[in-house]
Amino acid sequence: MSGRVKGFRFAGVHGGVKAGDALDLGLVFADEPAVAAGVFTKNRVRAAPVVISERRLKSGRCQAILVNSGNANACTGKEGTQAALALTRAAAASLRVPNALIVPASTGVIGVQLPCENIAAAIPALIADLSEAGAARFARAIMTTDRGPKVAQAEFKVGRTTCRLLGIAKGAGMVHPNMATTLAFVATDAPLKQATLSKLLRQSTELTFNRATVDGDTSTNDSIYALASGAASDRMVEEKSAAGRRLAWALTEVLESLAKKIVADGEGAEHLVRIDVRGARSNADAVQIARTIAGSQLVKTALHGCDPNWGRILAAAGRSGGRFNPDHVSMKIGSVLIYENGTPVMTPKTEAKAAETMKRPEYVISVTLGPGRGLGHYWTCDLGHEYVRINADYRT
Amino acid sequence: MSGRVKGFRFAGVHGGVKAGDALDLGLVFADEPAVAAGVFTKNRVRAAPVVISERRLKSGRCQAILVNSGNANACTGKEGTQAALALTRAAAASLRVPNALIVPASTGVIGVQLPCENIAAAIPALIADLSEAGAARFARAIMTTDRGPKVAQAEFKVGRTTCRLLGIAKGAGMVHPNMATTLAFVATDAPLKQATLSKLLRQSTELTFNRATVDGDTSTNDSIYALASGAASDRMVEEKSAAGRRLAWALTEVLESLAKKIVADGEGAEHLVRIDVRGARSNADAVQIARTIAGSQLVKTALHGCDPNWGRILAAAGRSGGRFNPDHVSMKIGSVLIYENGTPVMTPKTEAKAAETMKRPEYVISVTLGPGRGLGHYWTCDLGHEYVRINADYRT
Repeated sequence: MSGRVKGFRFAGVHGGVKAGDALDLGLVFADEPAVAAGVFTKNRVRAAPVVISERRLKSGRCQAILVNSGNANACTGKEGTQAALALTRAAAASLRVPNALIVPASTGVIGVQLPCENIAAAIPALIADLSEAGAARFARAIMTTDRGPKVAQAEFKVGRTTCRLLGIAKGAGMVHPNMATTLAFVATDAPLKQATLSKLLRQSTELTFNRATVDGDTSTNDSIYALASGAASDRMVEEKSAAGRRLAWALTEVLESLAKKIVADGEGAEHLVRIDVRGARSNADAVQIARTIAGSQLVKTALHGCDPNWGRILAAAGRSGGRFNPDHVSMKIGSVLIYENGTPVMTPKTEAKAAETMKRPEYVISVTLGPGRGLGHYWTCDLGHEYVRINADYRT
Repeated sequence: MSGRVKGFRFAGVHGGVKAGDALDLGLVFADEPAVAAGVFTKNRVRAAPVVISERRLKSGRCQAILVNSGNANACTGKEGTQAALALTRAAAASLRVPNALIVPASTGVIGVQLPCENIAAAIPALIADLSEAGAARFARAIMTTDRGPKVAQAEFKVGRTTCRLLGIAKGAGMVHPNMATTLAFVATDAPLKQATLSKLLRQSTELTFNRATVDGDTSTNDSIYALASGAASDRMVEEKSAAGRRLAWALTEVLESLAKKIVADGEGAEHLVRIDVRGARSNADAVQIARTIAGSQLVKTALHGCDPNWGRILAAAGRSGGRFNPDHVSMKIGSVLIYENGTPVMTPKTEAKAAETMKRPEYVISVTLGPGRGLGHYWTCDLGHEYVRINADYRT
């Protein structure tokens, strides 16, 4: 696949936020006003661009997203809000689009004012950089402590037409001192109503980004934007149609891929681990138990040590609030049974095999709670010295 | 003070659970059946001694507590329950007390059966070791990965009589691979009704042990036992009397001291930090916000790095669910103002002073949310390399 989506152009340049000549200013531009939806951080402390984006996206339309890295424009008061408004106004004027159709997004250091003059001066170069093949540069321009750009794409059929869906994200947990934020941008050329896009985005986010944890800290800037140009087809995709289901599947697949890339990139993580819980009384119980296991410091350090420590997994499940009978619990690491019907069953041989599985970059821990039909999962990563080094040893 | 409480004797010997000749078997013995109360782990996975203790303490009376370290007797099925019952039966017979008046407590490795024969063989020596001055040996016998014994005591007046309250605890977070548990034992010679003891224990636990976190993991064995002999005075202490308030104060003081010792001993911690939240809409909001700040991995690594990182504190408060207006927030580290009315106010000079405060073994971070009257606190510690070393680098 190409990293292109009909009706969209992308750009990434140096805008004078980061030192040197690193890319730090990105633009998503739709040739025509696109159908738009967003989901935003539930943190009570919200950065200026989050507040502005959420308000503007209420119209359901958006033509451009102006993104900077290196500065989160969070905890920056009225001056920060004015800066975000002024920069989107400048970009809107240069792009010749209505000011209400452009939204800002920022990621980076908290509590420092944006270098507005530098960014404003770079807007002409940013617009000149726009191209249909620009997603790769955009993906690099939004990075902060990410080890690499994060892009995922999918294709799906609407009638006989192939539509595309492209996702670009950044984030590695709230990893660096005062650095924050997960940002994700999704563009599709399928035509669909705003209500459909909004609903599918919420559903897919719940199943992907909301099932992934690095350190349990929700940032002040977390945002996901979805834009649909409709440029690929004239046939509107209805939610409850075969095409709608294919679109939902593609969106979930792309967001899942991006969420996994973020967890795998988390805080010096060496292992990406899926905690699968089944046999619960309800899906809500299963997700709650998976979330508590995935977030446990003791489980995460055991993952780092490649230690098949069923006691920590069981203790985390027990304190989660999810309902289960400990006597019915079984657990597997990869395909290795380590605990069965409330009893440890590891032999020296299977323990060695489980530990071997845990050395892999990606694997699954399955917890079966009983005969219930509830299931759920969570993505997590190990917690090791590199996390401490990144978060404690470097001073701001 | 003396470590003695009228009507109680304590013992600690080697019972063949731990390797070598380390103390690992302890006994609290009341000369007459004592008024008794307990609070137990809310974890759904509960060790055999927790289940037995909770059931037996429903009578409101207890004469002896048999404690072993080195083995938690958790996730050990029916065999584990039988073992705990058999050992308390053996101890009761030797002590010549009814079986229903003795309760078991265990701490150590999960999922391994108790070495019953060793322990049973040591019971005569354990009973022979009982003495009024035995609290120090008892405190050492219940240690697992603790860096030292944890004892606290207080005196208070009931009329003209001086009563005593002695607390002994163990715990350092669920720190060692497969090791678990906070255990605390409180003995007082004041005479009081079971309902009073039970209520005061719950209230004091809520304000102390339930306001302390090392890693957020509740163990399968966490228990606090309180026994009152009444040997110091004939005058019953009523809850709503001056003596009752002095007793409540002494109990809270002793449990607070023990809880602080446990957090300070947590997982290679170098700093014991009190998160003080005030100006909240309610006490519940304040405690919820303090708990979230105290539990944040990012805050805890910043504490380790002596980094006055207000952004992480604010972001944790924001995701806590507690209500507040970010524009009204102020923060201090020790006496140094770092954030005022929603705005960072650190200068290079005050930042250096804040960082200096954070090098201390114990200090306070104060968060004022606004004009509300709600207040609450939480004790926490830093998260550093030693935590990872202890929890990840050592395999079970």
